[in-house]
Amino acid sequence: MSSKRVVIIGGVAGGASAAARLRRLSESAEIVMLERGPYVSFANCGLPYHVGGEIPDREELLVQTPAGLKSRFNIDVRVNTEAVRIDRERRVVAIVDLITGGSEELAYDHVVLAPGAATLVPPIPGIKRPGHFAMRTVPDAEAVAAHCDTHAGGRAVVVGGGYIGLEMAEQLHRRGMRVAVVEALPQVMAMLDMDMANRLHAEIRANGLDLHLGDGVAAFEEPGVDESCAASVVVLKGGARLPADLVILGMGVRPDVALAREAGLEIGALGGIRVDEQMRTSDPAVLAVGDAVEVRHGVTGAWSLLPLAGPANRQGRIAADVIAGRNSRYKASWGTGIIRVFGLTAGATGANERMLGATGMAFDALHLHPFSHASYYPGATQIAMKVLFDPGTGRILGAQAIGQDGVDKRIDVLATAMQAGLTVDDLADLELSYAPPFGSAKDPVNLAGMMGQNVRAGDVALAQWRDAASLAEGSAVLLDVREPGEWTQGRIPGAVHIPLGQLRGRLGELPKDKPLLVYCRSGQRSYYACRVLNQNGFETRNMTGAYLTWMSASGATPAT
Amino acid sequence: MSSKRVVIIGGVAGGASAAARLRRLSESAEIVMLERGPYVSFANCGLPYHVGGEIPDREELLVQTPAGLKSRFNIDVRVNTEAVRIDRERRVVAIVDLITGGSEELAYDHVVLAPGAATLVPPIPGIKRPGHFAMRTVPDAEAVAAHCDTHAGGRAVVVGGGYIGLEMAEQLHRRGMRVAVVEALPQVMAMLDMDMANRLHAEIRANGLDLHLGDGVAAFEEPGVDESCAASVVVLKGGARLPADLVILGMGVRPDVALAREAGLEIGALGGIRVDEQMRTSDPAVLAVGDAVEVRHGVTGAWSLLPLAGPANRQGRIAADVIAGRNSRYKASWGTGIIRVFGLTAGATGANERMLGATGMAFDALHLHPFSHASYYPGATQIAMKVLFDPGTGRILGAQAIGQDGVDKRIDVLATAMQAGLTVDDLADLELSYAPPFGSAKDPVNLAGMMGQNVRAGDVALAQWRDAASLAEGSAVLLDVREPGEWTQGRIPGAVHIPLGQLRGRLGELPKDKPLLVYCRSGQRSYYACRVLNQNGFETRNMTGAYLTWMSASGATPAT
Repeated sequence: MSSKRVVIIGGVAGGASAAARLRRLSESAEIVMLERGPYVSFANCGLPYHVGGEIPDREELLVQTPAGLKSRFNIDVRVNTEAVRIDRERRVVAIVDLITGGSEELAYDHVVLAPGAATLVPPIPGIKRPGHFAMRTVPDAEAVAAHCDTHAGGRAVVVGGGYIGLEMAEQLHRRGMRVAVVEALPQVMAMLDMDMANRLHAEIRANGLDLHLGDGVAAFEEPGVDESCAASVVVLKGGARLPADLVILGMGVRPDVALAREAGLEIGALGGIRVDEQMRTSDPAVLAVGDAVEVRHGVTGAWSLLPLAGPANRQGRIAADVIAGRNSRYKASWGTGIIRVFGLTAGATGANERMLGATGMAFDALHLHPFSHASYYPGATQIAMKVLFDPGTGRILGAQAIGQDGVDKRIDVLATAMQAGLTVDDLADLELSYAPPFGSAKDPVNLAGMMGQNVRAGDVALAQWRDAASLAEGSAVLLDVREPGEWTQGRIPGAVHIPLGQLRGRLGELPKDKPLLVYCRSGQRSYYACRVLNQNGFETRNMTGAYLTWMSASGATPAT
Repeated sequence: MSSKRVVIIGGVAGGASAAARLRRLSESAEIVMLERGPYVSFANCGLPYHVGGEIPDREELLVQTPAGLKSRFNIDVRVNTEAVRIDRERRVVAIVDLITGGSEELAYDHVVLAPGAATLVPPIPGIKRPGHFAMRTVPDAEAVAAHCDTHAGGRAVVVGGGYIGLEMAEQLHRRGMRVAVVEALPQVMAMLDMDMANRLHAEIRANGLDLHLGDGVAAFEEPGVDESCAASVVVLKGGARLPADLVILGMGVRPDVALAREAGLEIGALGGIRVDEQMRTSDPAVLAVGDAVEVRHGVTGAWSLLPLAGPANRQGRIAADVIAGRNSRYKASWGTGIIRVFGLTAGATGANERMLGATGMAFDALHLHPFSHASYYPGATQIAMKVLFDPGTGRILGAQAIGQDGVDKRIDVLATAMQAGLTVDDLADLELSYAPPFGSAKDPVNLAGMMGQNVRAGDVALAQWRDAASLAEGSAVLLDVREPGEWTQGRIPGAVHIPLGQLRGRLGELPKDKPLLVYCRSGQRSYYACRVLNQNGFETRNMTGAYLTWMSASGATPAT
């Protein structure tokens, strides 16, 4: 490729990656990168932490400057410049300088569209009132920080319980605001299933935040005379009125496809730009990357919107490769994500139960509660872990984990295993690093694999926490095999109690004409009990995750 | 299998795993577990931390008790009981009660040999003097702790710089002893290559320990009149005399094969029990697991001794499966290991350069210095990472990493990728979890993958840190592309200096008739420079890991 001109629209993750990679592949290409904001290649994932003061210095967020990109990569970076039209017939991009108002046309051989996603602003009455903020750019973060200073100790309402919503809620709390989080769905963090997300709900409330679940915003109203607040009264559909000095709009994002749509490029059913594996749009001279495109989900194969920084960067690299004539391909996104919520970390990869249910894929779910490292070494804490797999093939379909420590490691190992096509059985054989401060001789990932092997070999059948409810109909017997001291402190209503150590001598107390639903604290002793019972002619199911999962998943008050 | 009798010799990791798994597979089997020490299933990896007081309570180390194994698994556990002979003709194990001296014969259908490894005690004069300790059992740990109390603030000499040696050195230091470490090889931690191990040497010395490398022990002598100390004077081959109140023997372990050898079972060339993939010895009624057996190395295919807890546990599970008639197989060990050395963590998986060199396998080595998490988020520290791969196929052959944080995660991801058969190129595509406190949009593992892709695509050729020495012969030009401030603070002798930002304008200063060996601080900017230079007709090699690797690997004093 000699002296091609490539115009890159958008200068953050995907766009900046494409520009830098392209220069490494071609010294002769003319590369113009347009960014409508004042900064390129800034750390948008760091914005909430800047608001909260964890990252005190704004300069830290500015990964690259236009001058640096010029000297290092010979890229013609134009900030405060908006691409307003792509004329595909004439192969020109029309641009406007947002400072001077001057306009210009740039001829191109290739365009890389990296416009990102825009904050979702649904048509709720009053949503555009003052004191409402999105969180997409450095100026957004600085405006919120300044607003917090002006209204120190005031009330913040965060609408939306996804990444931005929860990160902002924590940081505003850190900054001394009184924070409420409002989520229209019954749970926060859609990457998690409800039985896992409940742990985050408890953590958010334990930190003194007000959490409204399953209750959307009906309107943002001007404060009444008795409702003195600097922004709006957030009125929920359920009737609650939340006065707010500051409102964060964190209801999600939508692909920014105005330019693509206007240019006649194909848009997918979910509203993202449609691209092939080489990031080409319906016009092969125009490529698109990042939050604006639809991707194939690696587990379900479905077109998906997964606005994540890692995929955006990789897509930018691939777009540059393709423009340079290489055969690189972006095969799929896997939805690997992680968030810190106060003292907990929650991570997920692959599909969750909701997604699998929607596609009709067969799956089984394992719950376990392993320690972050050897339990005898100080500081070990339990991780709530969930692994989804295909009961037929053993294929790993997804994983979720929540805990104080070691969550990121296990999610990354599970993500790697899943992407490499390993089965749940294979997880048992992985040789992972072990010394007491870091793990266990049987790592949590190995334990999940052994559980999967046991299920797939037919050594134990699983029940889910919600199956405990079937007991109300008397169709099964719920058996608690914990120690007496644990039983006394709380139990699942309707259970009978035989400690594991006494089980072999008390088999006569149990019925053989009904399935036994067995639980202990975490599911390990109840697995042992199932093995004893199965070999003695009983029909059993091990309640995966056992009492710990039942407690957090059901939200029920245990019988004592 | 109805009422088989299985005798398990050894009650710690592999033996205990085999016993518990076997019971889960068979309620009817008669399972006898013999342990010559007073404790079964104790946390041997925790012993050093008990000595140092990080794990203050001995009870924490006792994972299972004989009573617990009886009530939970109906296992006949006999502690303080030694198996003295296996009579394979008559299918009996002769045992001796070490307390009463009584002897007995146990008939068996199967034996599982899990005797572990014994501390290596080479025939060095005086090695059995008083005040010398191995570290294999709970009583060993208690004896050392008591000895430290008696000789508080005294001098400890740790002989051997492997896992036990370094963990004990740190813990004795923590307990207030003045500690010297003596290692006959030129480096500690044989799982690492020298260019990585040097970082541990610096850390050990920075913590005030006395480290003797490449200097073995000639003798342990009775202290002379001027050498008052409670144990021995440790005399090194180089002549140094180290008075010691306490000596830790940490020169490694050897498989405990006395019983197997006496029974006529096949022993491998390395001195471990030879087993097949189903953990069967040369007598199919006798299986063997854990530190006493030789395993196939997953990368090189060579028979190896890899005494690690994780493999021992998995082998125990597989032996039980096989006895129960299942087709489980143990395919290979991968040498995944990790150690904390004061403020650093060092981990490795797969083969290192020495092992690959010994087998004649082709490899290339990548060095990188990525941050543990987003560099703009507080607490980010650099990880020194090394990835070995087959330049032809891209197969991952091994990885090593050292840093303050995030090392265990990256080693586990790389171990998983390697075991799953991914190529180094595939690492670029892994979708790993990212939020600023946990990682980067391009995780260190992704960066290693992108570097591998660049090398394998021919975009850049690598040089190693040691190639800088070739400059002495004038065969290449060493080019430093860092900023002037970095250059002023130190550089590799003989380098010329053109900052990356000025490179395009100063190409005329560089020769085209010699290869250019390019470096920066970590290797990223020098990669960019190589791309500029290659496209302008220069022959380049990027010094992988660059100045940071050169500094620690060479141990050289930089020119300033």
